[in-house]
Amino acid sequence: MSSLLEQEIQSQPEVITQLIDKEIHHIEQIIKQLPSFDYIIIAARGSSDHAATYAKYAWGTMAGYPIALAAPSLQTLYQRPPRMNNALIIGISQSGQSPDIVSVLAEGKRQGRPTIAITNDVNSALAATADHVIELHAGQERSVAATKTYTAQVAVMMLFAALMNGDKERITELQRVPGWIAQVLESSSAIARYAERYRYMDECIVVGRGYNYATSFELALKLKELTYVMATAYSSADFRHGPIATVKEGLPTILIMPQGAPYADMLELAHELQERKAELLVLSESQEALALAQTPFALPADIPEWLTPIVSIIPGQLLGLHLTIAKHLEPDAPRGLKKITLTN
Amino acid sequence: MSSLLEQEIQSQPEVITQLIDKEIHHIEQIIKQLPSFDYIIIAARGSSDHAATYAKYAWGTMAGYPIALAAPSLQTLYQRPPRMNNALIIGISQSGQSPDIVSVLAEGKRQGRPTIAITNDVNSALAATADHVIELHAGQERSVAATKTYTAQVAVMMLFAALMNGDKERITELQRVPGWIAQVLESSSAIARYAERYRYMDECIVVGRGYNYATSFELALKLKELTYVMATAYSSADFRHGPIATVKEGLPTILIMPQGAPYADMLELAHELQERKAELLVLSESQEALALAQTPFALPADIPEWLTPIVSIIPGQLLGLHLTIAKHLEPDAPRGLKKITLTN
Repeated sequence: MSSLLEQEIQSQPEVITQLIDKEIHHIEQIIKQLPSFDYIIIAARGSSDHAATYAKYAWGTMAGYPIALAAPSLQTLYQRPPRMNNALIIGISQSGQSPDIVSVLAEGKRQGRPTIAITNDVNSALAATADHVIELHAGQERSVAATKTYTAQVAVMMLFAALMNGDKERITELQRVPGWIAQVLESSSAIARYAERYRYMDECIVVGRGYNYATSFELALKLKELTYVMATAYSSADFRHGPIATVKEGLPTILIMPQGAPYADMLELAHELQERKAELLVLSESQEALALAQTPFALPADIPEWLTPIVSIIPGQLLGLHLTIAKHLEPDAPRGLKKITLTN
Repeated sequence: MSSLLEQEIQSQPEVITQLIDKEIHHIEQIIKQLPSFDYIIIAARGSSDHAATYAKYAWGTMAGYPIALAAPSLQTLYQRPPRMNNALIIGISQSGQSPDIVSVLAEGKRQGRPTIAITNDVNSALAATADHVIELHAGQERSVAATKTYTAQVAVMMLFAALMNGDKERITELQRVPGWIAQVLESSSAIARYAERYRYMDECIVVGRGYNYATSFELALKLKELTYVMATAYSSADFRHGPIATVKEGLPTILIMPQGAPYADMLELAHELQERKAELLVLSESQEALALAQTPFALPADIPEWLTPIVSIIPGQLLGLHLTIAKHLEPDAPRGLKKITLTN
């Protein structure tokens, strides 16, 4: 019998289809009802924080809003919340239970600012605190590592980006996402074969930029949680400001580089890393990029760049899954982790 | 003859003394002249980004301003800068030359927002773009890894925090910083002995929270740049949301835990890590915390918590320096790095 993790990874096309169907009009209504605001504060941790990072780029470019990722400890540790004048406050949490995330929303409400909760549990403390609640409709997530709730959160961020942008064509594009995810899921057995090669990998680097900066962090987190590999994520720009010094011959480097604005920069980095004899794993639909890789992960062609992150995380989830199998680890319950992490 | 890196590390008490002396009234004037703003956008990369992260906590708690760390690629890659209504825009760059950081300030200016440059080069493009320029007065930094310019940037952030807060006692506290740094620098030869133990370390974890979240990132970056160790930084809260699964017996874990608001949480984490048989390196003035460590780094007692980051990075700089010596590496010019990194 397959693991819960595998079942949840495979369920994503259906989860995203349902989510778009059930929440699109709701999100449209919420946007209409929001009072005016200048910028957005998002509170989130772990995978949810990566969905927030996606929003930082997508809402910035497509709707023009600057995003400040909250430092929840200003409230919880220092009891000195900042003044949130003219901000919209959003909390993202699968469980809706983390006290620090709830505290940021509660403070926003206390200051009279509009608040939105994005969660898989509409009966959670986070949902109870917010003016508006967006449900992920992902069904219970039983595996400890978040997969379907992460892509559902990213889909919500994409719905907001498209609806705030007001371009109907974006919605049409978004509805193709479940099909692209299903297409990548078909490569599961190919990725299982690739995973063998990385059975004894101790550490790796993951690089993405722009919209896929978030993907690099989420992919690294999946590898850390599931396979205990010391995976570190960077944007290609930050990577060049120092950490590139750690690259040595054979270091596995995962490059998330679908076509789009960061592609030329990522391609230049790929060539630099090839010169340094790094082991390249490339996620792209570009033959030119895939040809540079020891291990190529082909993405579907013609995905609009803003939608690539929800598709490009899938090979990462599958790599995590198949590495747990190759290493005889327990995919559903990594050592030392609980499903719900309560941080103050 | 000692390396440039060592000379620059040792020069920090003098650099900070001069900086405070030369910039305190200037910064006071700038604050008086600023038009009103609701929040602050800071653009920075590498070590400068860690100084910005310190500001996110210090300006949040002490002056009440939310900080959004800029995503420069919104401008440089996507040509879609966000609307910066009611924001103050700050760029931090040692060289003042990185085109992406300059572009964020230029866009802020185009939108009629107030702009401040914090740089070591008053003739740089960043300085030319800004309404106000704060010079670091650190002298030329010849070693590739930033040390004195990082602490100088943090000192500027501390001056702003104290002056925006308006509490004169903060300024008196700040003037004691050079003395505390000098005190830690005296432990250089002790740290050289400790470094022997980590000669063959491949990877390590660095954890700090609150004001010292920034320190954990800067310390990890020094180890990566100088010693090529795969060092990864976390807040204790983020660490529990997944990455703690990577901890195995003997994994070197550097805990930055001076007394203060995050101390209890960090102490709990230290005990958890001890149970998992991690190798603990502890930076603290608390005997209770130091007693848990295989390698204790004692900090001076009674530093006000908001000032601890500028002192607690010093043992990290010294560990980086002495590891380069133990490993026969070149401290002044790490492989594959240039002093000025131009990213778009």
